[in-house]
Amino acid sequence: MQNQTVLAPPDPFSEKERQAVYKAIYTRRDVRDQFLPDPLPDEVLLRLLDAAHHAPSVGFMQPWNFIVIRAQSQRDEIWRAFSRANEEAAGMFSGARRAQYRKLKLEGIRKAPVNICVTCDRQRTGKVVLGRTHNSDMDLYSTVCAIQNLWLAARAEGIGVGWVSIYRDADMRRLLQIPERIAIVGYLCLGYVDALYSRPELAIKGWQERLPLRDLIFEGKWQGQP
Amino acid sequence: MQNQTVLAPPDPFSEKERQAVYKAIYTRRDVRDQFLPDPLPDEVLLRLLDAAHHAPSVGFMQPWNFIVIRAQSQRDEIWRAFSRANEEAAGMFSGARRAQYRKLKLEGIRKAPVNICVTCDRQRTGKVVLGRTHNSDMDLYSTVCAIQNLWLAARAEGIGVGWVSIYRDADMRRLLQIPERIAIVGYLCLGYVDALYSRPELAIKGWQERLPLRDLIFEGKWQGQP
Repeated sequence: MQNQTVLAPPDPFSEKERQAVYKAIYTRRDVRDQFLPDPLPDEVLLRLLDAAHHAPSVGFMQPWNFIVIRAQSQRDEIWRAFSRANEEAAGMFSGARRAQYRKLKLEGIRKAPVNICVTCDRQRTGKVVLGRTHNSDMDLYSTVCAIQNLWLAARAEGIGVGWVSIYRDADMRRLLQIPERIAIVGYLCLGYVDALYSRPELAIKGWQERLPLRDLIFEGKWQGQP
Repeated sequence: MQNQTVLAPPDPFSEKERQAVYKAIYTRRDVRDQFLPDPLPDEVLLRLLDAAHHAPSVGFMQPWNFIVIRAQSQRDEIWRAFSRANEEAAGMFSGARRAQYRKLKLEGIRKAPVNICVTCDRQRTGKVVLGRTHNSDMDLYSTVCAIQNLWLAARAEGIGVGWVSIYRDADMRRLLQIPERIAIVGYLCLGYVDALYSRPELAIKGWQERLPLRDLIFEGKWQGQP
């Protein structure tokens, strides 16, 4: 590797390649219910994890681990932890919004054949990390970049991904024997899908509409509500 | 839109489309020095921001804003804030590592024609957010997903992106007039590039090597150091 050219003109993307990247970005969905039971071949799963592993990371720290969960009994247990937390969550909404919340399916833990818990080892390369000196959360953010890489690669492979965030951290930690020093960043459900929504499910189901992009762009300084 | 089919078989990716997505993932780099002065056309910048805007977000909260910074004088000011913080950062490393740190170029603030500060409005859709009830940082993570979408779309457009994380939050907040209730998630440098590294720059420069993926994958539970 040392003798290879390390800095070279960027391999340009053809128009079709560029469109493929945008297709992944625009048609990616947070899948909760469209999972098929078909198993994920090991080589496909490995491609997804390798895509995750090629995310940017602060100081090239690569703080992530991927705990792959397949056993139905274990997914049932994790679903019960979700279910308890989801009861608590529903209680935080009131009136019509609570009724609407209860109608939403918010996870595919039992239906998706593969689940992945993505963690962040805050001390992976020591205590002082290049680029993390002034923002201690940069390693968590790197781990999120890994999840987004996996998500887009999965879309290209025809695999749906759902990110479950409704569980008590302590429950997940206990069920997967994750040490206190390791942060749990995301819990993903993966599987082939028979269908995808044309727009985000929460928009279709009337929970929240997409905001106009133009309102979110500012020039030179914060231009929103003070 | 209401009469359109909302749930349909996923548009499959051809082998070439799939390869294009992986090409973006594998050849994306954190660019610090290879920026060209060529301006970014508005329509291209808008495509990148629209890609970011199509990231997943907790409860479809879309908590992000994009502050676009172009003026040289403003980028100079922000560079000075980086520079002060970078002196502090260098002091946190010792011996040979500090000397090595000082040799690295860690930002392209003045060289890249466009900078973007990406923020997160923690109250965008109210205090109780679907999916954020048990992990209050989910909105920050959504914002990171937006950054990673932008980064991959930029690679497909031939545009390099560098994520600068070495600055004091208070400095950035003051320079861009960002209110306290808004979180600053990332500061990005964007521009066309004349070259890209074949591997991560920090690996090529001997700071940190890529870890073997196999060591990062666990089955069913945490299997690393307790």
